[in-house]
Amino acid sequence: MYKYLKEEAYEANMEIKRNNLAIYTWGNSSAFDPGKGVFAIKPSGVEYDLLKPQSMVIVDLDGNIIEGKLKPSSDTKTHQVLYREFSQFADKNIRGITHTHSTYAVAWAQAAKSVPVFGTTHADHCFPQENGTNEIPCTDFMSEEAVKNNYELETGNLIADTFKKSNLNPVFNNMVLVAGHGPFTWGGSAAESVYNSAVLEEICKMAFLTLAINPAANPLPEHIVKKHWERKHGLNAYYGQ
Amino acid sequence: MYKYLKEEAYEANMEIKRNNLAIYTWGNSSAFDPGKGVFAIKPSGVEYDLLKPQSMVIVDLDGNIIEGKLKPSSDTKTHQVLYREFSQFADKNIRGITHTHSTYAVAWAQAAKSVPVFGTTHADHCFPQENGTNEIPCTDFMSEEAVKNNYELETGNLIADTFKKSNLNPVFNNMVLVAGHGPFTWGGSAAESVYNSAVLEEICKMAFLTLAINPAANPLPEHIVKKHWERKHGLNAYYGQ
Amino acid sequence: MYKYLKEEAYEANMEIKRNNLAIYTWGNSSAFDPGKGVFAIKPSGVEYDLLKPQSMVIVDLDGNIIEGKLKPSSDTKTHQVLYREFSQFADKNIRGITHTHSTYAVAWAQAAKSVPVFGTTHADHCFPQENGTNEIPCTDFMSEEAVKNNYELETGNLIADTFKKSNLNPVFNNMVLVAGHGPFTWGGSAAESVYNSAVLEEICKMAFLTLAINPAANPLPEHIVKKHWERKHGLNAYYGQ
Amino acid sequence: MYKYLKEEAYEANMEIKRNNLAIYTWGNSSAFDPGKGVFAIKPSGVEYDLLKPQSMVIVDLDGNIIEGKLKPSSDTKTHQVLYREFSQFADKNIRGITHTHSTYAVAWAQAAKSVPVFGTTHADHCFPQENGTNEIPCTDFMSEEAVKNNYELETGNLIADTFKKSNLNPVFNNMVLVAGHGPFTWGGSAAESVYNSAVLEEICKMAFLTLAINPAANPLPEHIVKKHWERKHGLNAYYGQ
Repeated sequence: MYKYLKEEAYEANMEIKRNNLAIYTWGNSSAFDPGKGVFAIKPSGVEYDLLKPQSMVIVDLDGNIIEGKLKPSSDTKTHQVLYREFSQFADKNIRGITHTHSTYAVAWAQAAKSVPVFGTTHADHCFPQENGTNEIPCTDFMSEEAVKNNYELETGNLIADTFKKSNLNPVFNNMVLVAGHGPFTWGGSAAESVYNSAVLEEICKMAFLTLAINPAANPLPEHIVKKHWERKHGLNAYYGQ
Repeated sequence: MYKYLKEEAYEANMEIKRNNLAIYTWGNSSAFDPGKGVFAIKPSGVEYDLLKPQSMVIVDLDGNIIEGKLKPSSDTKTHQVLYREFSQFADKNIRGITHTHSTYAVAWAQAAKSVPVFGTTHADHCFPQENGTNEIPCTDFMSEEAVKNNYELETGNLIADTFKKSNLNPVFNNMVLVAGHGPFTWGGSAAESVYNSAVLEEICKMAFLTLAINPAANPLPEHIVKKHWERKHGLNAYYGQ
Repeated sequence: MYKYLKEEAYEANMEIKRNNLAIYTWGNSSAFDPGKGVFAIKPSGVEYDLLKPQSMVIVDLDGNIIEGKLKPSSDTKTHQVLYREFSQFADKNIRGITHTHSTYAVAWAQAAKSVPVFGTTHADHCFPQENGTNEIPCTDFMSEEAVKNNYELETGNLIADTFKKSNLNPVFNNMVLVAGHGPFTWGGSAAESVYNSAVLEEICKMAFLTLAINPAANPLPEHIVKKHWERKHGLNAYYGQ
Repeated sequence: MYKYLKEEAYEANMEIKRNNLAIYTWGNSSAFDPGKGVFAIKPSGVEYDLLKPQSMVIVDLDGNIIEGKLKPSSDTKTHQVLYREFSQFADKNIRGITHTHSTYAVAWAQAAKSVPVFGTTHADHCFPQENGTNEIPCTDFMSEEAVKNNYELETGNLIADTFKKSNLNPVFNNMVLVAGHGPFTWGGSAAESVYNSAVLEEICKMAFLTLAINPAANPLPEHIVKKHWERKHGLNAYYGQ
């Protein structure tokens, strides 16, 4: 059972490795079936070389293990909260989440800085807000109370709160940096969530270099930000087949 | 028909991938036949692994699709304008154009800075102007009006205008950065245009590091700039076989 | 004899190469058998491609060669001192040591700076001190007297003294930078010591980038540092299977 | 004839490519036979993939082509001068020279800065001067007169003059940066000269990072510089087999 979901999660986890988004066992992807209310996720601390589709663990949105002999990723509760919180957005389901320790994204998270939109590579992937900005948000550091309460679950809450406060729609803005920790990304499938992790890493590297070359670099003008989003994702999108 | 042109464009597009000048489907190369007035270009949003010579699309200089079942690259109009504008230079035809999202070239474009000539690696590839400078030019940000009018076509115009204003000869200066976007390069063949993309990426990385090591680094003296261009491309060039 | 130990040391040395932690013959790993009081170490200046398990040299804690035809690594005495000094910690034996010239770790060592804990990647691997800090320590430069006395042996003493002065427990803090030289790491096996070298390199790269993005970056709050250590290594650790 | 010399030069040139010290046709290695007074060098502008041992060109110290159908590297005269100038050092013959465009070494050359000795990786490879310094020297920019006279030959003279002025012994200091251009290295064989190019690139990357982490980083103390040179190359060297 859930073979399709395990295979999707397995493939996404292997993509983390193939795209060099984490070393050793770091990072994890999950695949969600909104109809069944369960997701498949990488087991905790298992090397990528030893992973198989059948090693994936099936968990429901209350954190119950439905199927699988191994312990799920220690970040499982974060995935759980994000699927729960972000599925209230009716227009498009989120069916995959990825967490990595990719170098440049972690560096921005450690710097506790949101990533300004400096170019079209970024604008192609993040929905522009009404005020024209579309930074990739970085959360605050988690409070001592929240850490003591339930660290991984509160990581999910921290992300969800960051999106609510900034009035961001997680269907169109599917990348976040957790301060001092690293990136989480999501999307319409597990594969799309890893794609977003790879894109985020590239955007973070480019943004670092942009500021190194020109510390006074301006964000991309609002009209170009909007144009790039629209040509790829708008009503009259004309990118792709 | 146009099999030779499709194969040339296909090979150039695969070179983008082999040289790590773009991730996923980003970037595109085209090959131009000036006699027939048509060019072959990558289809929009298709993964490099799935590309075949026959997936290339044949387009004429007015943007009409002459052959091919897929939609051409969303940047097709930019290629179109550049072939039209730059073919007025009688001495040598431009037969290939490449656009990438290579990391260091994008960073300079996002920093909205022209790349100073710091060394012979750069001087070997860019024709020195009368005043001795031969920066790789970065355009201005595109105006809101131009974006609304016809974004990709205006990207071509923006590049062409930048070359006219600076009195640059596109036959000898075949690299440009579009502010906030990324690099376009061209050359006597599609292969040469990708070569120039790879060279530009290397020049941009070296220039970033040069300034990081010595923020007061001087440009290469004019007499060395000229010597390096001449030994490779001048009347008495003696580089190569 | 000692075949198991030679194979363990051989595998660890090959991991240095596979993880790009050193070029050419640089770097060395050893595997220690506390029961027998001997360790297997890479021979000096032999290329990784030519290494075989049987090329490893068996040395005791006084530096006597017990088995092997080749000269042991010129850093052998440093390993010897570290096994001797750090085995007084009763709770967990150190059974492997690795020295590399990995680029970012060497850069921090050359900068003569301890690496601040900026994120969870770091906190996952270094035991937090009572005052909440858990920098990866950088030693002082070795004195002229110590260099003249016995350079490699004194390198071991320098590391041991740094740990004593800072009251660090080498069982839980298993990474150090020797000022002007480079990193040494250790662990419960030779494989674990190389793993720690790879992790250290990644932490050093992330810390460099963090400061480049935000020179005023704050260290990770103490409560997150402690939480991350505990979830991976504490009494109620829940990471892994 | 000269088959052994062509094979040595061929192997060294292929090592440039394997070590990513240049892209495309950039870079060149030569192998010198002091007894016969000739050297084998890469032909000009030929891709590494197409190189064969028999494509190497044999040149004498006056620049005459002794054997080979292709034009030798455009940098041939620089090699010629260096073999002539540096063979006056009686104690050890220089039998190989390599020129690359490796990224970090070029960046230091473009920054027109000598590379300070920040660590043992550097000290292991460069003979310390009497005053304790052993920077990797960067030449001045070449004068207009010298460029007009004979550019490649004067590049050799510029290097030789830099060594004379600083009283450096090219047998023990076998790396140099030509301002605005890039690195030249040499050694007891063509293979050793490429090894030195790879080491130089690594030293240049480490030195860049060291200054980025700590702009006030101190050079390695003189007593450690001397110790490291001596343990690897001194009368009582004990590194290697």
